[in-house]
Amino acid sequence: MEFELLGQEGEARRGRVTTAHGSFETPAFIPVATQGTVKAMTRAELCDIGIEIILSNAYHLYLRPGPELVRAAGGLHRFMAWSRPILTDSGGYQVFSLEGLRKVTEEGVTFRSHLDGSEHLLTPEHAIEVQQMLGADIIMCFDQPVAYPSDRAVTEVATERSDRWAERCRAAHQDNEGQALFGIIQGGFDLGLRAESARRITTLDFDGYALGGLSVGEPRPVTYEIIDHLLPLMPAHCPRYLMGVGTPAELVEAVARGMDMFDCVLPTRLGRNGCVFISTGRLNMKNAQYQEDFGPLDPACGCEVCRHHSRAYLRHLYKAGEILAARLATYHNLYYYLGLMTEMRAQIAAGRFEEFRRQFHARQEVLE
Amino acid sequence: MEFELLGQEGEARRGRVTTAHGSFETPAFIPVATQGTVKAMTRAELCDIGIEIILSNAYHLYLRPGPELVRAAGGLHRFMAWSRPILTDSGGYQVFSLEGLRKVTEEGVTFRSHLDGSEHLLTPEHAIEVQQMLGADIIMCFDQPVAYPSDRAVTEVATERSDRWAERCRAAHQDNEGQALFGIIQGGFDLGLRAESARRITTLDFDGYALGGLSVGEPRPVTYEIIDHLLPLMPAHCPRYLMGVGTPAELVEAVARGMDMFDCVLPTRLGRNGCVFISTGRLNMKNAQYQEDFGPLDPACGCEVCRHHSRAYLRHLYKAGEILAARLATYHNLYYYLGLMTEMRAQIAAGRFEEFRRQFHARQEVLE
Repeated sequence: MEFELLGQEGEARRGRVTTAHGSFETPAFIPVATQGTVKAMTRAELCDIGIEIILSNAYHLYLRPGPELVRAAGGLHRFMAWSRPILTDSGGYQVFSLEGLRKVTEEGVTFRSHLDGSEHLLTPEHAIEVQQMLGADIIMCFDQPVAYPSDRAVTEVATERSDRWAERCRAAHQDNEGQALFGIIQGGFDLGLRAESARRITTLDFDGYALGGLSVGEPRPVTYEIIDHLLPLMPAHCPRYLMGVGTPAELVEAVARGMDMFDCVLPTRLGRNGCVFISTGRLNMKNAQYQEDFGPLDPACGCEVCRHHSRAYLRHLYKAGEILAARLATYHNLYYYLGLMTEMRAQIAAGRFEEFRRQFHARQEVLE
Repeated sequence: MEFELLGQEGEARRGRVTTAHGSFETPAFIPVATQGTVKAMTRAELCDIGIEIILSNAYHLYLRPGPELVRAAGGLHRFMAWSRPILTDSGGYQVFSLEGLRKVTEEGVTFRSHLDGSEHLLTPEHAIEVQQMLGADIIMCFDQPVAYPSDRAVTEVATERSDRWAERCRAAHQDNEGQALFGIIQGGFDLGLRAESARRITTLDFDGYALGGLSVGEPRPVTYEIIDHLLPLMPAHCPRYLMGVGTPAELVEAVARGMDMFDCVLPTRLGRNGCVFISTGRLNMKNAQYQEDFGPLDPACGCEVCRHHSRAYLRHLYKAGEILAARLATYHNLYYYLGLMTEMRAQIAAGRFEEFRRQFHARQEVLE
């Protein structure tokens, strides 16, 4: 994997990551394909929108259909018919979410499947092996995030263990040239522990570095403070991946703070639930006010949905429980997110990102 | 509306219907867009597949979002962004299905909404008015089908009333040049009553004639016997519409018996439920036997889905409850149905329909 830095304005930067399945431009938004499909979307639609990389979940694919089956299919790219880059997360976050169904030891995490209750042990080595079998272009270390808030002692134990697991992941992935491995900086919400984790993780010579364990309920100023504090500790020549973020405004702020990659379920999940992102904020399409609104979702948007369909039609589809509602909103939301990233890259290239950032937030105030 | 007869082989015939929103070739399969959307499909996909006409349900749109709203949107074509022909059914069949929630009098049907229990009276005149507000190219008379089996007395009362309602529908639709109105022949499963209904309905000078009240649970030989018996009574210069039919094999048989138009929820409903139609029959994609089957749904099919996706992937999507499963299967099934109709038209044109019909049934025996 290669990372080229193509431009910078303040901390905001523009770059290109090249993987075994082609390249993607950064700052990059990575739609989430939890179970081997970006929910409600086809591969052709993702390509139409200009999506260059997607994220799938090793935890989910490990449980169903199983990594052996995906490998037998020729790997995840072939299984889901996606020829562009794929990133898989390790399952650390999903296992962390199984409150009460898991037990953490130095060896790994014992957990019960959310599907059938079966018991599994996931170790750092096994998490890497599963991701190798899936065959994504970028894979992630197996880690242990902490909740917000957590006390310092709990955070310290989890962080130091995560960092030891990162070493084990690194060791388990020595010979795999086609797959990049990213380290994940933990440390909860303690700036000192975050800095210690950053120092340990960045000595391990990963292909990229992620900030993990954020966007788990903490206030936004806390997230931004951690990013600002960690940025000087993250190597400039590697992509910086802020996991699980975020809203359009959060993406703008994280790009301004030097982050390059982002994944989030918001555009797809909120789309299925009736919420669409537009240039001035977001709309809940189920609201009665749109019942006879025959205008487009976003008058400023040029996507297929906005060119052909009205708010009234979309509202009708939601009220009627039609699959097309989820489809149209997901398509529009991803189009909006991709357009936002494209615009940020262009503004950085033109040296006008700071001005864009101000205007973006000013626009958002109308509705948010 | 115009109907041109372009060719005939035996009773099977090829034609073209031209409406205010363009023409469609017959024999035509009409996908069902119950609530103003062919479930799980976009307008662009329907066009890609070559769908020329769709059916929507006046009953459903009457209850939600309401014909006033659709009219305010500029009519159903604009509301659902579909610029090709639309046919609406009158609601007779849907009201008939509300067993226990309806009361039939000479004036019309009083029923309770399946959505909120509110009480409504639908008369022939009102059913026409609703369809005029929706603005479809072809609209249907309001009728009263009977269940299978029904005794002769019940069938006679319902049929004679339906025929009187047909006169009232005809009278309510005198001045509407842009919209074709089709009469519906009822008569249940009594050949004598069917013939009487056909004689009465065909004197009313409709733009087309439908056989209604079939495919409600009766054995297939009964359906075919009724078609054969009624065919000589249906004017050759008008399109003949067999409502609610059917499976691929039933379509072949109905085309052989001189029918021109068909609508059915099977390709969309079964697609959502895991069943795909292929050239040799049908497959239930949820079956374990497809778990590691990395071949296409149908090796003989050239659709987007068969060109890119495997049975194993589709099965995974069903097991995972993903919307994409419904999307891919619906797309494939409609592609299959449209391909079947295209092939039948070509075979009639070439004078080889009878040979095709034999080969079709021979192929089906492999799986059905």
